[in-house]
Amino acid sequence: MLRTKNFWVIGGDRRQAALAGLLAEDGHGVHTFALEQVQGLNCQQTLDGARLAHCVILPLPAGDGQGRLNAPLSAVRCPLGEILSMLRPGQLVCAGMADEGLRALAREHGVTLRDYFAREELAARNAVATAEGAIQIALEELPITLHEARVLVLGFGRLGQALSPRLRALGARVWVAARSYHQRALAQGMGLEADGLADLRDWLCSFDLLVNTVPAPILGLEELSALKEGALVLDLASRPGGVDWESARALGVRAVHALSLPGKTAPVTAGRYIQETVYHIMEELGV
Amino acid sequence: MLRTKNFWVIGGDRRQAALAGLLAEDGHGVHTFALEQVQGLNCQQTLDGARLAHCVILPLPAGDGQGRLNAPLSAVRCPLGEILSMLRPGQLVCAGMADEGLRALAREHGVTLRDYFAREELAARNAVATAEGAIQIALEELPITLHEARVLVLGFGRLGQALSPRLRALGARVWVAARSYHQRALAQGMGLEADGLADLRDWLCSFDLLVNTVPAPILGLEELSALKEGALVLDLASRPGGVDWESARALGVRAVHALSLPGKTAPVTAGRYIQETVYHIMEELGV
Amino acid sequence: MLRTKNFWVIGGDRRQAALAGLLAEDGHGVHTFALEQVQGLNCQQTLDGARLAHCVILPLPAGDGQGRLNAPLSAVRCPLGEILSMLRPGQLVCAGMADEGLRALAREHGVTLRDYFAREELAARNAVATAEGAIQIALEELPITLHEARVLVLGFGRLGQALSPRLRALGARVWVAARSYHQRALAQGMGLEADGLADLRDWLCSFDLLVNTVPAPILGLEELSALKEGALVLDLASRPGGVDWESARALGVRAVHALSLPGKTAPVTAGRYIQETVYHIMEELGV
Amino acid sequence: MLRTKNFWVIGGDRRQAALAGLLAEDGHGVHTFALEQVQGLNCQQTLDGARLAHCVILPLPAGDGQGRLNAPLSAVRCPLGEILSMLRPGQLVCAGMADEGLRALAREHGVTLRDYFAREELAARNAVATAEGAIQIALEELPITLHEARVLVLGFGRLGQALSPRLRALGARVWVAARSYHQRALAQGMGLEADGLADLRDWLCSFDLLVNTVPAPILGLEELSALKEGALVLDLASRPGGVDWESARALGVRAVHALSLPGKTAPVTAGRYIQETVYHIMEELGV
Repeated sequence: MLRTKNFWVIGGDRRQAALAGLLAEDGHGVHTFALEQVQGLNCQQTLDGARLAHCVILPLPAGDGQGRLNAPLSAVRCPLGEILSMLRPGQLVCAGMADEGLRALAREHGVTLRDYFAREELAARNAVATAEGAIQIALEELPITLHEARVLVLGFGRLGQALSPRLRALGARVWVAARSYHQRALAQGMGLEADGLADLRDWLCSFDLLVNTVPAPILGLEELSALKEGALVLDLASRPGGVDWESARALGVRAVHALSLPGKTAPVTAGRYIQETVYHIMEELGV
Repeated sequence: MLRTKNFWVIGGDRRQAALAGLLAEDGHGVHTFALEQVQGLNCQQTLDGARLAHCVILPLPAGDGQGRLNAPLSAVRCPLGEILSMLRPGQLVCAGMADEGLRALAREHGVTLRDYFAREELAARNAVATAEGAIQIALEELPITLHEARVLVLGFGRLGQALSPRLRALGARVWVAARSYHQRALAQGMGLEADGLADLRDWLCSFDLLVNTVPAPILGLEELSALKEGALVLDLASRPGGVDWESARALGVRAVHALSLPGKTAPVTAGRYIQETVYHIMEELGV
Repeated sequence: MLRTKNFWVIGGDRRQAALAGLLAEDGHGVHTFALEQVQGLNCQQTLDGARLAHCVILPLPAGDGQGRLNAPLSAVRCPLGEILSMLRPGQLVCAGMADEGLRALAREHGVTLRDYFAREELAARNAVATAEGAIQIALEELPITLHEARVLVLGFGRLGQALSPRLRALGARVWVAARSYHQRALAQGMGLEADGLADLRDWLCSFDLLVNTVPAPILGLEELSALKEGALVLDLASRPGGVDWESARALGVRAVHALSLPGKTAPVTAGRYIQETVYHIMEELGV
Repeated sequence: MLRTKNFWVIGGDRRQAALAGLLAEDGHGVHTFALEQVQGLNCQQTLDGARLAHCVILPLPAGDGQGRLNAPLSAVRCPLGEILSMLRPGQLVCAGMADEGLRALAREHGVTLRDYFAREELAARNAVATAEGAIQIALEELPITLHEARVLVLGFGRLGQALSPRLRALGARVWVAARSYHQRALAQGMGLEADGLADLRDWLCSFDLLVNTVPAPILGLEELSALKEGALVLDLASRPGGVDWESARALGVRAVHALSLPGKTAPVTAGRYIQETVYHIMEELGV
C-alpha cells in the first residue's frame, strides 16, 4: 500500500527496536538513533540525516519526564529540543504520550507532531495485549486453573471488554461489575454476568480473582477485608490504581499492580501496533 | 430490588404482551389496555385507573404515525392525546420511539415522558437479539452451513460487534469491512479479519454471505454484480437499507431486508429487555 | 492432490446433486444417472459408460428399502442389482448406509464396496451440520433468544459435543446430562455444567429448551410433566428417538423430532462432506 | 451426596496436600501421613488408625520408583509394603500410576487397589489444566501475543482438543496436524484448520509457536531446520517427547519440554480433580 519510505526510529525500549525491525521487513529504509544496545539495527552516531526522513518516530513515552529523550537502550542522553532542531519544518514526527513540553518544541521548530498513543485504534490494540498479560500473571500467581475459577472484573471499558471474554473462553466464571447500565448490557451480551458497583463488598467473598480496570479507589479496607482467603487482586488501572495498597499489605492480601503490560509481556507485538498506527497517520496525512 | 408497583401496559404487539406478563411475574400490579386479543392478560375496557399507576408503558413504537396508539393486538383506535389526558401531572410515561407529537402532548399534559428505545442499554440488548435473528435467516436461506462459510460483515457498530463473534463461534470465516481504524482494531481484537470499505467490489466475489449493518448506500450495482453466484445478502440497516434493491432484483441476487428482528423472532425477550430498561428509568427517577 | 478422475454419481437427493457439482468444480469428469430433475448436471440416459469410472457413488441411503436405488430426483426406478451388473469387477463403489442386500450384490458382482456413512470423519462432519440445523429449529420455534436461555443437552457424544459449545457461544446457559463421568468431564472442560441422568425429572423444570441426543427412552411421562410451560423439546436421536411422543401430545408439550438435518438444512455442505470422505477412501485405496 | 467418610491421605506433593484440605472442606474426617512439611494439616506420626479409613489415598505417582512412598513434602522414607501392611483386607486404596510392584503388594495384603490416574475422567480434567499450563509457558516465552500468532498443534487427542480451541479463543491462528481423518474432522468442526502430518517440514516455516502432543519422534533435524527464526517449540508429550533435543540445541531452536504441568502450575486444581475421581470410585464401589 505504502511505497518505500525513509524512517528514523529514535530512542525507546524493545517496542521501538521491534518497530525498527518491522519497518525494515516491510521494505522501508530505516535508520535508528539512541538504540545502539540492540543488535542488528542500523544505528547512527548522529542525527545528521534525520531531516530526510518521511517520518521520525519517537518512543512511548517520548520523553524521560525531564525534557530528554526516553532512551533506556542507549547511553545517549539527549534533550528532545536538540532532536527537533535537527528536523525540517513540516516534517512528520510521531511520538507516544507527547507532553506539553514536546508540543511546544514541535511548534517552535515547525514540525508536524502526532501522538500515536492518543489514537483509538492503538488503545484498542493495546487492550488485547494487556488482557493477555493479565492472563499470564493470573496463571503464574494462582495455584488453581482459570478454568472454573470465579473471577470478578471491575469496570467494563476497553480493557474489561478485551479481557472478560478471554477469561470466559478459558472456562472462568466471570462476573462484571460496572456502574453504567450500558456497559452491563454489553457484558451480558457477551454471556457474562453483570451487576453494579454498589454493595460490592457484600458479594466479593466468592471470587478467586479480582481484576480491577477502574482508575478510582474502588478496593478499600472494607472490600479487601471481605475477600476469600487466597484470592488474588490484579490491578490494571493506571497509577495510583484502584487498590488501597496499604490496607492490602496490612491484611496480607495478595495484590499485583500490573502497568504497561504490552511493553513488558509482548514488546514485539506492541511495536507492531505502533507501526500500524504510524502507517494510519501517514495515510491520513498523505505522507 | 423494586418493591411492588402498579403498571399500566398500553397497546403494542407481542413484546408489549410479554412485558405485561413479566411484570406480573415479578409481583407487580399490572393492568393492560388495548391488548384484548392476547389471552390471560388483565385487560381493561377503559383507562379509568391509569392515573394511579407508578408507570405507564406505551409500546414500541408508541404511535401509529398518525397520532394514534400503535395497537395491532386490539380493536381500539385511540389518539395518544386521549391517553395522556387520562394521566396525572408528573406521572411517569415510558414510550418507545417517542416522536415530536408525543413529546408535545407530554408537555401539554405535564407527564414525565421517557423514551426507553433511546437508551444505550436497550440498544445493546437489542443488538444481541437482532444478531440471533440474522443467524436464523442465514441458516434458513443458505444451503450450506455457516460453519466454514465465508461471511462479510459491513460495518462494525453495535450490531456488527454482536453478530460477528457469534458467526465466528459457529465456525464461519468472518471478515469485517469498516471505515474507521478504531472499529477495525476492535474487530481484529475479536479474532476477525478487518479491512476498509474502499475497493470493496474487488474482494466481494469470495463470500457466501454478506451482512450489511451500514445505513448508507453501500451495495450498489457494481458491488452486487461482483458477488459469487448463490451468495446471500442480508441487510439489517434501517430503511432504506444499504442495498440497491432494484439492481439486486435485476441481477437476480438473493437479498433480504430484515427489519425489527427482535420483535419478530424473539418477542418475549424483546419484552424482557424493555422491562429491564423501564426498571432502570424508574430507579434513576426514584419512582 | 488427486489427479483428474472419472466419477459416476447415481441417484440421491440434493446432497448427491451438490456432490456432482463439487466434483466437477474440482476438475474431475462427472457423469450422473437418475438425477435428471436437477438442472445443469450431465445426466445420462443409461449406465453404459459407468464401468469406466474410477469411482461410482451411490446415494445416502443407497437403497429405497426395497432393493431399488434411492432416487427421489428422478423418474428412474432401478434395482441396485441392475446397477452393479453394469460395473466391472474390482471397481470402486462408494455408498451410504449400505445394507446387507447391497453388500451381497457387491460380492456377487465382485465390486469393491465402501460405505462412506460408516466413516468416523463423516460422522464428525455431520455432527456440525446437525448442530446448526438444531440451532435453526430452536431459533425458529422459541419466542426467546438462545442468548440467556436455559438449555439442557441430554447426552454428550459426537452431537452433544458439537452442539453444546455452539449454544454456549450464542450465550445460552447450557447444562449437559450424561451418564459417563468421562463425558461429563469433557463437558466441564468446555465450560459447561454437567450432571448425571439420575433424578433428571427433579431439575427439568428450569429449562427453556431440551435437546435430546440419546437414542433411548429418556423423556417419558414423568419427565415431560415436569417441564416448564412453553419449554421446547428437540429430539435429535434417530428413530424412535428418546421422547414418549404420545405423552408429549397428551400433555401439550411442544416437541420436535428432527431427523437427517444435514441433508435438509445444508444439502450442499452435506454433499461436500461426502465428497471429502470419498476422496479419503480413494486415497487409502490408491484409486 | 456422600455422607461423612474417614480418609487417610498419605505422601505426595502439593496436589495431595490440597486434596486433604478439600476433603476436610467437604466435611470428611481427614488424617494425613508423610505430609508434615505442609502447614495446617492434621498430620499423624504413625499409620496406626489408617485401617479405620473408608479410603486411603496414595499420591501421584504412588511410589518413588524404588518401592517406597513418593513423599517429597516429608522426611519419612517408607516402603509401600509397610503402608499396606497397616491396612485391613478389602480396604479401599486409591493410588496414582500404580505400578506392578504396588499391584502385587495390594494382592498380597488383600486390599482393593484402584488407580485414579487410569480413569478417563481424570485424564480429561488434566488435559484442561495442562492446556492452561501450556498457555502460561507460551505467554511467558514469546515476545508476541498469542492473539494473531500462528500456532501449529501437532496431534489432536485429548490434549490437542483441550488446548487448540483455547488458543483460538485467545485469537491465535491455529492449525492442527494430525494423522487421522477423524481427528482432522473434529478439529475442523472446532473452526480450526487441519492437515496431515506428511510433508510437515514444507509448511513449518510460517509458525510462531509449535505445540507437540504426539509421543513419537516428530520434530527431527529437518523439521527443526525449517522453523522460522524465533519460533518456540513446546513439547507436551511424555518423555522422551517428540523433539530431537540434540538437534534443537545445535540449531539454537528455543524448545521447552513441559511435563506434569497440572501439578506444577495448578496444584490445587489438580488435587481437586483427584478428589472428584476418588469420589467416583467410591460411588461405583458403594463405599
